[in-house]
Amino acid sequence: MIQVVLLGTGNVATHLFRAFSGSEEVRVVQVYNHAPKSLERFKNEVSVTTSLENLKPADIYVIALKDDAIAEVAKELQQQDGLIVHTSGAVHLDVLKNCRRSGVFYPLQTFSKDQPLDYSEVPFCLEAKDEKDLELLKNLANRISGKTYEVSSEQRKKLHLAAVFVCNFVNHLYAIGEEICTENKLPFNILQPLIAETAKKITRSSPADVQTGPAKRNDISTIEAHLQQLSSSENKEIYRVLTRAIQTSHGKKL
Amino acid sequence: MIQVVLLGTGNVATHLFRAFSGSEEVRVVQVYNHAPKSLERFKNEVSVTTSLENLKPADIYVIALKDDAIAEVAKELQQQDGLIVHTSGAVHLDVLKNCRRSGVFYPLQTFSKDQPLDYSEVPFCLEAKDEKDLELLKNLANRISGKTYEVSSEQRKKLHLAAVFVCNFVNHLYAIGEEICTENKLPFNILQPLIAETAKKITRSSPADVQTGPAKRNDISTIEAHLQQLSSSENKEIYRVLTRAIQTSHGKKL
Repeated sequence: MIQVVLLGTGNVATHLFRAFSGSEEVRVVQVYNHAPKSLERFKNEVSVTTSLENLKPADIYVIALKDDAIAEVAKELQQQDGLIVHTSGAVHLDVLKNCRRSGVFYPLQTFSKDQPLDYSEVPFCLEAKDEKDLELLKNLANRISGKTYEVSSEQRKKLHLAAVFVCNFVNHLYAIGEEICTENKLPFNILQPLIAETAKKITRSSPADVQTGPAKRNDISTIEAHLQQLSSSENKEIYRVLTRAIQTSHGKKL
Repeated sequence: MIQVVLLGTGNVATHLFRAFSGSEEVRVVQVYNHAPKSLERFKNEVSVTTSLENLKPADIYVIALKDDAIAEVAKELQQQDGLIVHTSGAVHLDVLKNCRRSGVFYPLQTFSKDQPLDYSEVPFCLEAKDEKDLELLKNLANRISGKTYEVSSEQRKKLHLAAVFVCNFVNHLYAIGEEICTENKLPFNILQPLIAETAKKITRSSPADVQTGPAKRNDISTIEAHLQQLSSSENKEIYRVLTRAIQTSHGKKL
């Protein structure tokens, strides 16, 4: 049984709490947050505290707080015997260097508090100063997911950057699709099978190999017609920049 | 039984052929293409021809050819009694105005010849000059898909534009994700659960409501760090333009 203290009550912390609670081999012994109100949702299920001085003994302390708060909270955990890990994609392992034992437990997924998730599909990016601690993190991750990866701080930083492209930026393109549908009295769900298939295709083929569309075909007249149809200057610029990038990638110039 | 002559042998034509062949209420009576070689794959299964003068009688003639070729081929079909439709997202119904009966049968999906597809999930955008012909097209589409929509030429043009954003441009962002993984010796499949969840989220919520990331949070220091990490000038520009667009959409300025 792996005993865990969870520090944080945001999206990631909430999902980890649910995932850990679903495993018989993991026990969340306590949830910490500085704000009492955010602990309300947890207090019927687990011991809670607003004080870092009152943390219970545990095998692993999981800091699932905002990036800026990690260093400060870690300072208060330097005397703990358990393994201290954070869950951030962008923060280096070194931020925990004054802890006796340190590591990273980064779930590469987009979390919303009120949307359920299949945890077995979440890739966990793991890192630890010590080899034995890495094994402990693998063990913890394997309790909730079949996908664990050993990822260095440098690689993790790049993954976090890649995630901005394939998640945050992609979502904004979906938002533009919805905007175009709404302006033209079309239901957004007409685009959803296309969105689903586009995301599915790249599990079978490299995205560069399945690129399609007017930019790839160098179909200048369609590109010009599309630019004329776009009313917002932001959307025009996105269209231009992405068209140019596709053309460059595929060896053609506008 | 709806009798269909299929004009074309490309991605869309090939998928329509498979989908029609899977229905007991549709019969493809002939496939046309001007190039004999491209008919090779079909000739054991169906009557084929390279001559527009030798087309068989049919209820519907489906022109699934390149946009530029539609008008020219349609000219040769003006004397046919059957309904003439094209399958293009970008071409107006008027291109068929000299045909006796005309319509549009546009499957809003991304097709690759060698990738199987669940046709029941493909939305068909239908249009016809005549109300009875529209019913015939609905009937044909319903034989292979549960999703049929009545869409005008003007709306279809906008859908085609939206598809560039949510399919072609999104795929290029996936390609950048893969590029970042490869450069950092990470397997691309580590990003796939995130890609799948991002696409799934917008079936339950409006994309604008589930936007996340440094641009949405106005997290300037992460944005600066990401820009520094990008080596390619195209990727830097994509990052800048999409970040600015998200900030504008969500009411914040850089």
